[in-house]
Amino acid sequence: MEISVGRNVLEANDLIAAENRKDFDANGCFVINLMSSPGSGKTAILERTLAALDGHLSAGVIEGDVQTTLDADRLMAFGVPVVQINTDPQFGGECHLDARMVRTGLASLDLNGIDVVFIENVGNLVCPAEFRVGEDCKVMVSSVAEGEEKPLKYPLMFRVSQLLLLNKIDLLGHTDFDVARFRSNVARVNPTMPVLELSAKTGQGLQAWLDWLVSEVGRTSARRALCGENLRTQSS
Amino acid sequence: MEISVGRNVLEANDLIAAENRKDFDANGCFVINLMSSPGSGKTAILERTLAALDGHLSAGVIEGDVQTTLDADRLMAFGVPVVQINTDPQFGGECHLDARMVRTGLASLDLNGIDVVFIENVGNLVCPAEFRVGEDCKVMVSSVAEGEEKPLKYPLMFRVSQLLLLNKIDLLGHTDFDVARFRSNVARVNPTMPVLELSAKTGQGLQAWLDWLVSEVGRTSARRALCGENLRTQSS
Repeated sequence: MEISVGRNVLEANDLIAAENRKDFDANGCFVINLMSSPGSGKTAILERTLAALDGHLSAGVIEGDVQTTLDADRLMAFGVPVVQINTDPQFGGECHLDARMVRTGLASLDLNGIDVVFIENVGNLVCPAEFRVGEDCKVMVSSVAEGEEKPLKYPLMFRVSQLLLLNKIDLLGHTDFDVARFRSNVARVNPTMPVLELSAKTGQGLQAWLDWLVSEVGRTSARRALCGENLRTQSS
Repeated sequence: MEISVGRNVLEANDLIAAENRKDFDANGCFVINLMSSPGSGKTAILERTLAALDGHLSAGVIEGDVQTTLDADRLMAFGVPVVQINTDPQFGGECHLDARMVRTGLASLDLNGIDVVFIENVGNLVCPAEFRVGEDCKVMVSSVAEGEEKPLKYPLMFRVSQLLLLNKIDLLGHTDFDVARFRSNVARVNPTMPVLELSAKTGQGLQAWLDWLVSEVGRTSARRALCGENLRTQSS
């Protein structure tokens, strides 16, 4: 039992997450809940990603932080709509985003025409993994600077994520980080999750992440079209 | 209002923290609540610290993790008593230590003859700062790899700590981290908190931290002796 919050809290959260999901579906948005420890490089990865997507896919960002608009300011520079959620003071200084907070953010984000929504969670390796926000998938970031044993010590986020981005590989030569051992630890917790190595600083490895992203957006879009087709068939 | 937990929860916590404090005082222990993001290097700093204290001060460790005994195993190698607290499953997978968890740990730790108790909190930059556990002081670790803006985005821990250890300065030449900007951000949140730069990997800067530690242990010991003297004077 890894859930530190009560079941009724999570059930209430899931109801709001389903409302968010409906809005995302109605607008054909693919939604990523991006999670990590503080300082793993979520924002830096999004900067690279938004620059690369420009002209190919339209993006929107919901930015979660305890305080400040520092990260939102960085991402607004890419000309995409960015909505800031500060958990302090609006949501009691919470250490994660939940569905209600994201719902509040959606009130200020026009989803029409947006292909992919990035929800950058509060930096925290524990609690964000417990709350659905209506996402298509959870993507987590680990950094070479954090050590190889995090999948074992904080297993929930590694277990519930669909993709792991191992960031800061530019530091590999300057730390004792052992990629093979990290991959082995990830596999003990989540044997099927792909791990993509990259550096938001140098851009190395970014293409594989972009390919994954474009592919997932396409698959989701195709699935939605198929569902719509099925619905029309059933109702005819 | 940064406290995300209810006031009654914190008041109940403080009552247990006071019980812990009594036990620490009765045994003349100086107690540090060591907090940081995951992967900032708390355990590595403790490894260096325990090695350096050997023969000078006797230490004990309460080790907090969501899962595994990996960190406790590392520290037991130094021949000091180490008690592991796993929040999962015993405490619902909580993302922090609270006074009750530490109290549970104290049942397995003989404080008699221990000069300094290190309580290594769960890696999390938000919630650990909210819970007193009976410590003399809160010491936090930041890592060069985490970026300079963390004091502004996660201010509570920086505000309630008495000392900040800036770890991984061996990476300074390999990142864009700006020490002056980081110090300026820390000062905006906590103008009087000392910041000591060190590298648990190379040992650089460790002496200043050890000097601080020995000095604080001595000051606390002298204060306790004075309090005892006053008590005897008052009761005679």
